[in-house]
Amino acid sequence: MPMVCLTDYEDYAREHLPKATWDYYAAGADECCTRDDNLLAYKRIRLRPRMLRNVSVTDTRTTILGSEVSCPVGIAPTAFHCLAWPEGELSTARASEAMKICYITSTYSTCSVEEIAAAAPNGLRWFQLYVYRNRKLSEQLIQRVEKLGFKALVLTVDVPYPGKRREDIRNNFKLPPHLKVKNLDSSFEESNSPEEYGVPVQTLDPSISWKDIHWLQSVTHLPIVIKGILTKEDAELAVEHGVQGIIVSNHGGRQLDGAPATIDALSEIVDTVQGRIEVYLDGGIRTGCDVLKALALGAKCVFIGRPVVWGLSYKGEEGVRDILQILNDEFRLSMALSGCRDVTEVNSSLIQMSRL
Amino acid sequence: MPMVCLTDYEDYAREHLPKATWDYYAAGADECCTRDDNLLAYKRIRLRPRMLRNVSVTDTRTTILGSEVSCPVGIAPTAFHCLAWPEGELSTARASEAMKICYITSTYSTCSVEEIAAAAPNGLRWFQLYVYRNRKLSEQLIQRVEKLGFKALVLTVDVPYPGKRREDIRNNFKLPPHLKVKNLDSSFEESNSPEEYGVPVQTLDPSISWKDIHWLQSVTHLPIVIKGILTKEDAELAVEHGVQGIIVSNHGGRQLDGAPATIDALSEIVDTVQGRIEVYLDGGIRTGCDVLKALALGAKCVFIGRPVVWGLSYKGEEGVRDILQILNDEFRLSMALSGCRDVTEVNSSLIQMSRL
Amino acid sequence: MPMVCLTDYEDYAREHLPKATWDYYAAGADECCTRDDNLLAYKRIRLRPRMLRNVSVTDTRTTILGSEVSCPVGIAPTAFHCLAWPEGELSTARASEAMKICYITSTYSTCSVEEIAAAAPNGLRWFQLYVYRNRKLSEQLIQRVEKLGFKALVLTVDVPYPGKRREDIRNNFKLPPHLKVKNLDSSFEESNSPEEYGVPVQTLDPSISWKDIHWLQSVTHLPIVIKGILTKEDAELAVEHGVQGIIVSNHGGRQLDGAPATIDALSEIVDTVQGRIEVYLDGGIRTGCDVLKALALGAKCVFIGRPVVWGLSYKGEEGVRDILQILNDEFRLSMALSGCRDVTEVNSSLIQMSRL
Amino acid sequence: MPMVCLTDYEDYAREHLPKATWDYYAAGADECCTRDDNLLAYKRIRLRPRMLRNVSVTDTRTTILGSEVSCPVGIAPTAFHCLAWPEGELSTARASEAMKICYITSTYSTCSVEEIAAAAPNGLRWFQLYVYRNRKLSEQLIQRVEKLGFKALVLTVDVPYPGKRREDIRNNFKLPPHLKVKNLDSSFEESNSPEEYGVPVQTLDPSISWKDIHWLQSVTHLPIVIKGILTKEDAELAVEHGVQGIIVSNHGGRQLDGAPATIDALSEIVDTVQGRIEVYLDGGIRTGCDVLKALALGAKCVFIGRPVVWGLSYKGEEGVRDILQILNDEFRLSMALSGCRDVTEVNSSLIQMSRL
Repeated sequence: MPMVCLTDYEDYAREHLPKATWDYYAAGADECCTRDDNLLAYKRIRLRPRMLRNVSVTDTRTTILGSEVSCPVGIAPTAFHCLAWPEGELSTARASEAMKICYITSTYSTCSVEEIAAAAPNGLRWFQLYVYRNRKLSEQLIQRVEKLGFKALVLTVDVPYPGKRREDIRNNFKLPPHLKVKNLDSSFEESNSPEEYGVPVQTLDPSISWKDIHWLQSVTHLPIVIKGILTKEDAELAVEHGVQGIIVSNHGGRQLDGAPATIDALSEIVDTVQGRIEVYLDGGIRTGCDVLKALALGAKCVFIGRPVVWGLSYKGEEGVRDILQILNDEFRLSMALSGCRDVTEVNSSLIQMSRL
Repeated sequence: MPMVCLTDYEDYAREHLPKATWDYYAAGADECCTRDDNLLAYKRIRLRPRMLRNVSVTDTRTTILGSEVSCPVGIAPTAFHCLAWPEGELSTARASEAMKICYITSTYSTCSVEEIAAAAPNGLRWFQLYVYRNRKLSEQLIQRVEKLGFKALVLTVDVPYPGKRREDIRNNFKLPPHLKVKNLDSSFEESNSPEEYGVPVQTLDPSISWKDIHWLQSVTHLPIVIKGILTKEDAELAVEHGVQGIIVSNHGGRQLDGAPATIDALSEIVDTVQGRIEVYLDGGIRTGCDVLKALALGAKCVFIGRPVVWGLSYKGEEGVRDILQILNDEFRLSMALSGCRDVTEVNSSLIQMSRL
Repeated sequence: MPMVCLTDYEDYAREHLPKATWDYYAAGADECCTRDDNLLAYKRIRLRPRMLRNVSVTDTRTTILGSEVSCPVGIAPTAFHCLAWPEGELSTARASEAMKICYITSTYSTCSVEEIAAAAPNGLRWFQLYVYRNRKLSEQLIQRVEKLGFKALVLTVDVPYPGKRREDIRNNFKLPPHLKVKNLDSSFEESNSPEEYGVPVQTLDPSISWKDIHWLQSVTHLPIVIKGILTKEDAELAVEHGVQGIIVSNHGGRQLDGAPATIDALSEIVDTVQGRIEVYLDGGIRTGCDVLKALALGAKCVFIGRPVVWGLSYKGEEGVRDILQILNDEFRLSMALSGCRDVTEVNSSLIQMSRL
Repeated sequence: MPMVCLTDYEDYAREHLPKATWDYYAAGADECCTRDDNLLAYKRIRLRPRMLRNVSVTDTRTTILGSEVSCPVGIAPTAFHCLAWPEGELSTARASEAMKICYITSTYSTCSVEEIAAAAPNGLRWFQLYVYRNRKLSEQLIQRVEKLGFKALVLTVDVPYPGKRREDIRNNFKLPPHLKVKNLDSSFEESNSPEEYGVPVQTLDPSISWKDIHWLQSVTHLPIVIKGILTKEDAELAVEHGVQGIIVSNHGGRQLDGAPATIDALSEIVDTVQGRIEVYLDGGIRTGCDVLKALALGAKCVFIGRPVVWGLSYKGEEGVRDILQILNDEFRLSMALSGCRDVTEVNSSLIQMSRL
C-alpha cells in the first residue's frame, strides 16, 4: 500500500506495534474527550480561500525564536522513541535535521541528549524539561543541553501529576528493562522513588509555580518556552514572567480530560499575547490543511507528536522524514490553494469566523 | 480485568446482574432522552485549566449542611440494594462510613434504617422520604430516623406519580418475595393498596405541594433538602419556604423524559439561590472531571446513584468503596490539573462559558 | 411482547404488513429529511417541569372548535385504512368514539362517509377534503358530510401535486382491486383521468388559491380548518380569510422535503395568530411528552397519523384504542410530572426557550 | 430496479464502473470534509413553503447570460467522459441539447470540441478552460470554441495546482492509453512535461492572477465566467474586472479540503454582487429541492458534475437525459409545493434564515 497521508502511518503503527506500546502512544486521559476533540475541532473550521493570486512561487519557511525552519511544523516531545524503532531518538534527530525543522527532544528519551546531538549535529533542537523536586537534577540537565547546542528550553507545565490513562493501567505498561531513560540514568538520588512506566515520576515537583520561571531564568541563558497553556490568563502571566514563547497544548489530551481542543483555545491566547512573544500549538494536526488553520488563527509554528512515532514505527528516520515531507507538501499545497505565497500571507481572514 | 473507572463496574453489573434487575436500575422514562442527556451534557462542557499554581498539597474535603465530608461526592438514594448484593444497604452504609462521605438512605431500602444505622454507626446519613397520603406513616419514619442520628431529611418532590419505564413494564419487574421494603413493613394500613414493583406506591401522595414543606418543618427539627428541583422558579420557592438545601435532580432521567440534564439546569438555580442555601446535584456523574464541572458551576456536592449499585454488584461494601475511591482520586487529580488546591478554588472561571 | 408504547406498534406493523403497504404508510418525500426531522425536533426541546403543585387531580380534557374531547390528541386523516385492517375506517371511527376524541376522516377512505358515520354515530368527526377541478364533486361531498353530522371541514392545502415518494414508485404501489375509495366511487365524470395509487389524482386542482376559501365558505355552513400551513405569512392570511382553525402540518414529510419539522414551525404561527383562531399540529408525535411540548408551544390539539395505522394493523379498533389510551396516559403523566393539572396550565413557561 | 432519483444512478455507477474510475470521479481532497459538506449543508437548510398560490401552471425556464434554458440546471465541466461511456462527451452533448440546458464542456474532454459541437449543433455550450503557461495554447483553444459557437468561456481559477486526492494516488490512476484529451492532442510543445492522470498538468500556470482576466478579455469577445470563487472579496474583484458571471464552486471538494460547502458560501457572494453579474453554483446538488434552495439563496442556475457521469455510466445519452429530467421534474414539483410558479418567484423568503 502506498503511504499517502499521516493516517496511513497510523494504521501501520496500530497493526505493527505491540498492543501495549500502541496503547501507550494512543492513550488519552479518562474518556478521551479532549484527545478526540483535538482532531474534530479542525473539521469544524471552514477556510475562505482566495483565488488568482499568482502562487507560482511558494515558500513555507518561517523562523521560530530567530531560527529559520523549512516549514512551520516541528516535532513535539514524546517519550521512549526506542519503543517504536530500535535507534529511537537518533532517527528522529536525523530526520529533523534532514528536513530542517525543529526537534523538541523529550527528557524521557531513550537515547541521551549527547547521543542525539551527535547523531544530527546541525539540527535545530530545543529541550523539553520538567521541574524536579531536586532542582539540581534539572540544573544538570540544563547545563548538559546548553553545552550540546540546544537552542531553547521547553518547560512542560501541565504535569503536576500524570493524567489517568485507562489502558496503560489495564496493560500495566512499563518501559521494558532493556530500555532506559538515559538522560536521567544515574542522576536520581532517590533510587527508590515511586515509578510510572518504570520511570521515577514522583520526583516531578507538583509545587511548580510561576516562581520557578524566575528560578529557571536564573540558571540558564537559553530562551524559555512554556508548554501547556490553555487560557488567556496564563498566557498573560507567561508574557509578564518574561518567557520567549508559549506552546498551546493539552498534552495530546493525556492530562485533563475536558480541556479544550488546542485549536479552540488558540484564539484567546493569540488575542491576549498580541505578538509580544511567539505562540505555538500542538495537538491534533493530521494534514497540511490543519497546519494552515493553526497558522491562520495565529500560531507561529505547530508541533506534531504521535505522527512522529507512527513514522518511526514504519521505517525509523525514513518514516519520520516521510511524515514531515507529507505535511510540508500538503501545507504548501493548502497555502497555494488558499492564495497564499508564504506564511506571512496566512492570517485570520482565511477563517470563516462566524462558524467558530 | 483491572477495574479502573466507573464504567468498568457498569460493564460488570450488566453482565452479572439478572436482566430484569439490570433493566430496573438502568431504566429511564419513555425514550430515555433525559437519562442519556445527563451524561452527554458533561461532554459538551469545556474546562479552562490553570497552570503553575503549586498543587503539591490538595484537599478534597468540604462540608454539607455543616458536616465535613472527605470529598464532594455522596450517595444518592436508590432502592433495593439487596437486589445487587446480599447485604444490600448494610454494605453501602459501611462503605460510606469508611470513605467519610454522606449516604442518603432511601425509604425503599431492603434493610431497615435501624439495621443500616447499626451497621455503620459513625457514618454521615441523610434520609430520603416521600410524603404519604397517610401523613402519620411519614411522621413515624421521621421519628425513627431522627432517633437513629440521621442528619437531614431529603424530600423527593418529583414523584407525584412514578415515571413510565418501558423495560420494567415489559419485564413485569417486581421485588422478589424474599426481599422486603423493611422500613415500611407492617406500617401500611391500606394493605390492599395498588403496588408498583411489589411495593405500595399509590400511597405516595400526588397532592404534595409547598404547604407540605411547612407541615414537614412542623414535625421535625432536622434540616430539609428538596430533591428534584430543575427551575429557578422552584429554587426561589424552596428558599422562601425555608429549606436548607436543594438537590438539582431529574431522578436519573426516570421521571419526566424531556427534562433537562441536571448539569444544564444547575446554573440558573445557582444564580437564583445566590448562596442563601446549599445546592447539590445528582445525575450523570461518571468521572472526577464531571464532579469538577458540577462544582465549578456551583454545586456544593454531587450524589451518585447507579454507580453505587454497580459497585455493590461487584463486591458489596468493597465495590462501593472502590467506586468512591476512584471518584475521589479522579476528582483530586482533575482539581490539581486545573490548578485548584481545594474546593474553594473551584469556581466558574474554570468553565468555558461561551460554549454552554 | 407487551405493547407498551407507540413504537411497539410500529415494530409490529413493520413486521406484519405487506412490504408495499408498510412502505406506503412510512414514506416520506425524496430524502425523508422532513419526515425524520418531525420526530427529531421533539428530542431537541427541553422542558422546565415545576414541582409541588398538587397534581392529585388531573384533567386532560379540552375543546376544539367548541366540542369537548377527552384529550388533546385526535386522528389525522390518512388514506386506505382497509389496507391495514379489514374493517378499516369503521374500526378507526369506533375507537375514536369510544375514546371521545376527534377523528378527521380522509376523503381517501376505503369505507364511505355514510358507513363511517353509521359505525360510530356519536363520535366527533371532521371531514378532510381536497378541492377538485370539478367543484361540483367537492360540493357533493360537503353536502354528504354535513348531512352525516361531521362538525368541520379540514381543507388540505399542501397537495397541489402529490409529493415524490421513492419507495412507492419503486413498488409501483396501487390500491388493490378489491378496495375502493368509496367516497369518490362513481362520482368521477372523467373516468379516464390519470391515477395515483389507482386513484384519480389529477382531478385535484393545483390552481387552488385563497379565493377558493371564499368559494368553500359559500357552499358550507361548517367551520373550516386549513391543513398544511407552515409560515406566519400564510397563518395571517388564514385568519384574514375567516377560517376557524389551522393545522400546522407538512403532510407527515410526504410533500416538500426540506420543509421544517412542524414543532419547529409552530411558534411563529402561534405568535402571529395570537389566539384569533385555533392552531393545531400534526407530525412526529410519538409520546405523551411530545403532546405536552406541542401544547406548551401553543397547539390546542395535536393529530396523529401513522400511529393510528400501526394500531389498526395490530388489532383494528382495539389497536387504535390502545394507541390513543397510551398517548392519553402518557400525556396525563407528563402533565402531572411537569406540575400541570389541566391543559390550561400547559404554557410556554414549560419550555427552555434558550435551547430552541 | 426502477431508477427513481440521482442516487440510484450513483449506486449503479459504483457497482458497474471499474474501481479506479469510480474512485477518480468520487474523489475529494484529503479527508473529503468539503466534498461531503457540499451535500450535508443542503440538509441543514429549512424551507418556508407558501400555500394556496395557484400553481396550476409552472415554468422552470430561465436565462443564463441571455440564453434561455429549460431549467436552471446545467452540466458542470468534468473530465474524461469516455471513461464512463464509450461515446463520452458526444452523449453528454446530445442529452444537453435534447433537454435544452447548458453544457459546460471541459477542456479535458475525451472528444474534441469539434466532435462535440457536431454531435449536438443546436445545444447551448460554454467552454471551460484553464490558463496555460503557454498562453498561445489557451488562445488557440479559445479561437476554436469561438468558431464552433460556444457561448461563453468558463475560467477555472481554483487549480493553480491539482488537489491531493488520496485514492487516485493509491490507484496510480491514469487515463488509459486508448483515450486521449483530444482538445490538447498535438498542441503541447513541451511533449515531456510532467503529467497527472497521463495528462500534462504542469503546463497549467500557477501564476494565474487577476491580470490574466484582462489578457483573456483581450483575446476573446465571449463573455467570461469565473469558476471557483468562494469569498465576497473575490466576488467583488470579479465584478470589478468586468467578467459576466461567477460559479461559486469548490471543485466538488477536490481542491482545498476545509473550503466551505458552496451553498454555505453563496449568500455572502450574492449579497456582495447585488445583481451586477450572474452568480451560479455547483457542488452537492442531488435533488430538485437542492436546486430550489440554491435559487432561493440567489443562484441564477446550478451546475451538476458527478451525477452526469453516473447517468453516462448507466446508459450514455439516455442516462444523462434521465438525470436531467429527474432534476427538472423534482425542481418543478418543489417549486410548486413551495408556492412558486416560476423562477422569478423563488427568493430568499423561502429560506428559514434563522437556522442558517
